[in-house]
Amino acid sequence: MSASVTRNPGEHATVIDSEQVADDPETALTVAKIKALRQSIDNVDTAIVSLLAERFKYTSQVGVLKARAGFAPADYKREDYQIERLHHIAVGAGLDPDIAEMYREFVVTEAKKRHQRIADAGGDPGVLDVFA
Amino acid sequence: MSASVTRNPGEHATVIDSEQVADDPETALTVAKIKALRQSIDNVDTAIVSLLAERFKYTSQVGVLKARAGFAPADYKREDYQIERLHHIAVGAGLDPDIAEMYREFVVTEAKKRHQRIADAGGDPGVLDVFA
Repeated sequence: MSASVTRNPGEHATVIDSEQVADDPETALTVAKIKALRQSIDNVDTAIVSLLAERFKYTSQVGVLKARAGFAPADYKREDYQIERLHHIAVGAGLDPDIAEMYREFVVTEAKKRHQRIADAGGDPGVLDVFA
Repeated sequence: MSASVTRNPGEHATVIDSEQVADDPETALTVAKIKALRQSIDNVDTAIVSLLAERFKYTSQVGVLKARAGFAPADYKREDYQIERLHHIAVGAGLDPDIAEMYREFVVTEAKKRHQRIADAGGDPGVLDVFA
């Protein structure tokens, strides 16, 4: 596997591991609670990564349509609409709106990069097929 | 609204607007297709932002448990597990694994920042209540 975590020099880390805390009941309880929460976090990540897969399939189709019609990758009116919309959804869901905006910035930036690659390939979405 | 889109100087943009293309049937069809895809993209974003809200509620609880037990915000063994896991899910879902890794890096980095803020506040998750 090519990906790896960037370790910040000087950053403190604690490996949550049940073996190391077996002799301290209170710490063992904390570790058990963290493990249960991590399973829920993993379930959320499975759902989000699956939805991201669908999102990038949709934006790939948009990229092909834009390239063939001669439209540019960016559409600022659309981005303003998305910012306002996701801010509203975040507040209603109890999420820091800054997180929603960071999410939007991330996916829109990556989608536009892919739109440009499709445009550069003359409207061929095959350029994005990372598994080819 | 405080958030705004960063406009890159020189970046080309096209506003997809049905009014401007009413007299060209082919372009009108492309615009209609893009609008339908955008509705699906918006639906995916609603789901993802709602799931991110749940994810940060879970990680806030983890932050409180870590702070009270004296654990550091970072856990590299956990991060290695998440990298491997999300890479596998991305490939199975047809998503560029780089996108999954960027997603993981984003949420884990933000969760650790919030863990540190909870620790600095002596284990009080109220420090994250952006709506207070």
